[in-house]
Amino acid sequence: MKDANMTKPCIICVAITGSLPTKENNPAVPITVAEQIESTQEAFEAGATIAHCHVRDDEGKPTSDPERFGRLKEGLEKHCPGMIVQLSTGGRSGAGQTRGGMLPLSPDMASLSVGSNNFPTRVYENPPELVDWLASEMVKYGVKPEIEAFDLSHILKAADMFKKGQIAETPYVQFVMGVKNAMPVDRDVFEYYIKTVHRLFGEDANWCAAGIGAHQITLNDWAVSSGGHART
Amino acid sequence: MKDANMTKPCIICVAITGSLPTKENNPAVPITVAEQIESTQEAFEAGATIAHCHVRDDEGKPTSDPERFGRLKEGLEKHCPGMIVQLSTGGRSGAGQTRGGMLPLSPDMASLSVGSNNFPTRVYENPPELVDWLASEMVKYGVKPEIEAFDLSHILKAADMFKKGQIAETPYVQFVMGVKNAMPVDRDVFEYYIKTVHRLFGEDANWCAAGIGAHQITLNDWAVSSGGHART
Ligand SMILES: [Zn+2]
Ligand SMILES: [Zn+2]
Ligand SMILES: [Zn+2]
Ligand SMILES: [Zn+2]
Repeated sequence: MKDANMTKPCIICVAITGSLPTKENNPAVPITVAEQIESTQEAFEAGATIAHCHVRDDEGKPTSDPERFGRLKEGLEKHCPGMIVQLSTGGRSGAGQTRGGMLPLSPDMASLSVGSNNFPTRVYENPPELVDWLASEMVKYGVKPEIEAFDLSHILKAADMFKKGQIAETPYVQFVMGVKNAMPVDRDVFEYYIKTVHRLFGEDANWCAAGIGAHQITLNDWAVSSGGHART
Repeated sequence: MKDANMTKPCIICVAITGSLPTKENNPAVPITVAEQIESTQEAFEAGATIAHCHVRDDEGKPTSDPERFGRLKEGLEKHCPGMIVQLSTGGRSGAGQTRGGMLPLSPDMASLSVGSNNFPTRVYENPPELVDWLASEMVKYGVKPEIEAFDLSHILKAADMFKKGQIAETPYVQFVMGVKNAMPVDRDVFEYYIKTVHRLFGEDANWCAAGIGAHQITLNDWAVSSGGHART
């Protein structure tokens, strides 16, 4: 984790192939590892400092395959020197402990969901035991988590985990808004999220925000004007 | 639903046999329907105005059995005339649509979880489809929901459902705090919950709060001094 890069206001987090789009939806979405590295390099040269990474299998479906994550990480380190590599442990790419199978690669960061919530058509399940295990793997392999806050309690849970040593450094929280049946895009809540991060983690605590789909522009606007990090 | 009873500050909500305790844990906890009616009558005579009800099967395990709920409701109507009867559709008593099997009894109120979250050792699953179905049954049978807010997004989800007609009247929200891995007992969040209820549902909107176990006293203190309803 390059903490020197974690200072405001220059962090831009680029999401490489979010877990949802496939080539069928959008032929321009990078799918192969080679394509991902190429598009990330463009973003890196344009100023992005964190690469939030998902990978796909040969059918274009989300996977947690450590081998693919390994090739992506290696390629990014070669082509985007100094870029922070953040691998996704999200539930769309696998179930149970397979979600953390790439953590032994010791990426700079990995996403970590610390609670459960609803998604548009199902429950996004992050059972307590799995959360604890993923966090312990991150401590073990020196991976800084990005806490995916789909709801307010997830920020308080991160504080509790930090207090207990389950998270090694001051939690770095991403507010996720605009997912149907989870937290909507709401400015008042957004302000309260920031207030809560500062209350729990100090005035210097970093955070970022992600709006889903069309909400991304709104959330980036809000984030950049409030001292948070943008996500593209 | 007796709306005349829904005016501040006189609502006291008594929880009859929460879903967790069994006779083994605490021999004084009422279990049979007859015992439940008796203990509720005492609370009613002492001023309680809402009875939040769970029922048990012959082994003392939580159940959603409509027949038992029917006997309890009938007994309460007879022995506690005017008391608001609220039946639980909570997930500890059953799975899927069995959770709403008692709604055709048209109780005054029923609890309604509108999102998912973690519990101490598992995920509390309220999939979107089930939430929609339970809400539609409540509209169909004229049952006022009490929204169980285990997290902030649940209050915003209730607002969305109200806007869409999935909830017939101004939502009545209960803040649930102190469940491990869900929302902790946090005064700042509690104040923000109240602020959010007033922002979304108006200054006159009623709400109540429930603290789990030892937290109940704290939450009642906070609720009563902030214009909410107590739960005993
Ligand atoms: Zn980020
Ligand atoms: Zn992701
Ligand atoms: Zn209540
Ligand atoms: Zn209950």
